Amino acid sequence: MQKVLYPPKNEWSQLLERPDNGLEDVYDTARGILDDIKRNGDAALIKYTRMFDGVDLDMLEVSQTEIDEACMAVSSDLKDAILIAKQNIETFHQSQKTQREVVETMPGVRCWQKSVAIDSVGLYIPGGTAPLFSTVLMLGIPARIAGCKEVVLCTPANSEGQVNPAILYAASLVGVSRIFKLGGIQAIGAMAYGTASVPSVAKIFGPGNRFVTAAKQLVSLKDVAIDMPAGPSEVMVLADESADAAFVASDLLSQAEHGADSQVILLTDKESFLDEVEQEVQQQLQALPRKEIAQKALTNSRLVVLKSVEEMLEMCNAYAPEHLIISMRDDEQIANKVSNAGSVFLGNYSPESAGDYASGTNHTLPTHGYANAFSGVNLDSYMKKITYQKISAFGLTKLGPAIETMAEAEQLMAHKNAVTIRLKKMGK
Amino acid sequence: MQKVLYPPKNEWSQLLERPDNGLEDVYDTARGILDDIKRNGDAALIKYTRMFDGVDLDMLEVSQTEIDEACMAVSSDLKDAILIAKQNIETFHQSQKTQREVVETMPGVRCWQKSVAIDSVGLYIPGGTAPLFSTVLMLGIPARIAGCKEVVLCTPANSEGQVNPAILYAASLVGVSRIFKLGGIQAIGAMAYGTASVPSVAKIFGPGNRFVTAAKQLVSLKDVAIDMPAGPSEVMVLADESADAAFVASDLLSQAEHGADSQVILLTDKESFLDEVEQEVQQQLQALPRKEIAQKALTNSRLVVLKSVEEMLEMCNAYAPEHLIISMRDDEQIANKVSNAGSVFLGNYSPESAGDYASGTNHTLPTHGYANAFSGVNLDSYMKKITYQKISAFGLTKLGPAIETMAEAEQLMAHKNAVTIRLKKMGK
Repeated sequence: MQKVLYPPKNEWSQLLERPDNGLEDVYDTARGILDDIKRNGDAALIKYTRMFDGVDLDMLEVSQTEIDEACMAVSSDLKDAILIAKQNIETFHQSQKTQREVVETMPGVRCWQKSVAIDSVGLYIPGGTAPLFSTVLMLGIPARIAGCKEVVLCTPANSEGQVNPAILYAASLVGVSRIFKLGGIQAIGAMAYGTASVPSVAKIFGPGNRFVTAAKQLVSLKDVAIDMPAGPSEVMVLADESADAAFVASDLLSQAEHGADSQVILLTDKESFLDEVEQEVQQQLQALPRKEIAQKALTNSRLVVLKSVEEMLEMCNAYAPEHLIISMRDDEQIANKVSNAGSVFLGNYSPESAGDYASGTNHTLPTHGYANAFSGVNLDSYMKKITYQKISAFGLTKLGPAIETMAEAEQLMAHKNAVTIRLKKMGK
Repeated sequence: MQKVLYPPKNEWSQLLERPDNGLEDVYDTARGILDDIKRNGDAALIKYTRMFDGVDLDMLEVSQTEIDEACMAVSSDLKDAILIAKQNIETFHQSQKTQREVVETMPGVRCWQKSVAIDSVGLYIPGGTAPLFSTVLMLGIPARIAGCKEVVLCTPANSEGQVNPAILYAASLVGVSRIFKLGGIQAIGAMAYGTASVPSVAKIFGPGNRFVTAAKQLVSLKDVAIDMPAGPSEVMVLADESADAAFVASDLLSQAEHGADSQVILLTDKESFLDEVEQEVQQQLQALPRKEIAQKALTNSRLVVLKSVEEMLEMCNAYAPEHLIISMRDDEQIANKVSNAGSVFLGNYSPESAGDYASGTNHTLPTHGYANAFSGVNLDSYMKKITYQKISAFGLTKLGPAIETMAEAEQLMAHKNAVTIRLKKMGK
């Protein structure tokens, strides 16, 4: 890990550069496969699944028998843990419900906003090195709380045509409607366009590799909404003398093991802390099965000492980290000054892995600096806010003349006439 | 307008087709200009402004003198009308503020969500046939209520290098920080990348033609967030025997005059209503200055009679209209069954133009069926929701084992270790 001492501000933007996330080289591949799926439906899905996942599927959909068997295969310890996580995630996302509030902006002019569930949503759960059943909880639970009618899940099967049992258990637990053995671009294309087997959805959620990300971006241009742009995962830690070097090192490593392109950054105002953390990182690293991945990620990473807490906050807001851990004495005060971050963890006993799994907050978060404008997945992500208005005849006599004046000034006379014709009928 | 009587369901999707909105033919142009702006900054902005808007600008930024002069040029009638609209828009968007609520998902595990303003936003206001100062109110007012620090506005100047006074007055009234004489792809590129004159922003809002839409989509792939995908404007009216044919015709026309690619659709269960509305449309049309535009839009439009209110609702939800007018006796009950719409207008005295200008709801709404997954612009559009958690040592002893079990099952041992190392230190 690169150690950086008191960098001047003109070096910050270089220091905060993220590993390259360019998708230019995969757009063409993604576009070609998406077009093929749009034209040829299931046949294309089966072809690419054979090509990329090395498995020949007769049935794309996971059967009830497979789900039942998976549920039996999951250990009771893991089931208990998943139930605790589910309960907390439900509690937190349930609390995000809002009430319809009618506002009378003028006498006789009633306006309100109502959150309405998106009818059908699609969840993508990657395969690959780790079976991410936790993401099934994070994406599936708020979909059900929102009231989405159809919740479709796609995840790749292994070379035997099987899906990880914990993924199927979690999907069944949270009430996913239908599960398909599809990965990568195929999954995104299937849910965007629909095929004979797979229904199309109105919004697609979930993480994935560069091909998945590129495919999500391409379909979002025209056909379907997506949760957010995605990039490699990252954590920033703000630490002062109250932080524990071993804890901080464990948090940096838990982010680093996600992928070789992950990035972890420590900011502190205590110079000696850099060495303490580095030593702990090196020591803890040795015991990790995903040591090689973590080591690669550490080469993208930085340990930075800054002059003041103010500088730490300024650099943090400039970086807009996906995960932010504040291990500082005044953690809550500092947190109030954070303007750009996905999810924030306060104090010494809130490891990032708590939010990754079980505390209740969502782990699908904006990466790559998108936290400057995007929220993480939350209940709102599964709903749209529709506005309503009901104006009484009296209300329109009060409001109407302003509308007429403005419409005329914008040279939109039919807009004006829609008011005039009503006022006239009332004899106004 | 095409009249359609009792169409069978297998003909609905064709019936509900929108005018083609393909951007494929403008992406290349937009990409080329955006690249040029990214590389050459202000020089490229000045070059394209000369080329497309026919005006040579020394200064891209509108000066305080220009703003002051514009404010004097706007009539007091129009100022009064704008102030009424501003007041109502403020009241409605202010009511969308949410409180931070701390949820204890388990003893010692506190989670909360906080809305935080996006630091800098950019508003695009088109030039063209109508000076859309109302859009300045709709986009600028919630930005200020949210607390965005920098609010940049771009709008094209006319061939004399001037911006419409009402646009400058509205911008100054709502507290826009800086105004630039830039239109089209140039405006979007400038706000996405930043130049010597124009600051880059984190999110770009506002309507525009196909070039603007294509440019917004392209920059949203990598550089900046955007409000929503945009398409031609549209209205659907649901009417029963309580509706007034003259009022309905005026609403259809106020949408039709927006652009030749606008679409207006009437659904009713009263067959004779089609002819009544058609006659009224033809009659009112004659008096409109934008008659030609409206007439073209009417060729994309339909008057449809259906068998039942249920069918009307089903077709409405399948279409997902940007604007929905419900001129029916049971308007509030019907409105409760609407699942896909941008903004809904109830009863005989809520013309769409009320929401376009002055009732308080926002007029920047999802078109082209995107209302199935997108909200219109609202206070949330200017904020992101950051989640926070603070777990006590006690809380982690309760929650920790579930995290350890789940992390191990996902084969992410560093995630597990971040908990284990803390529990050990506590002697657990």
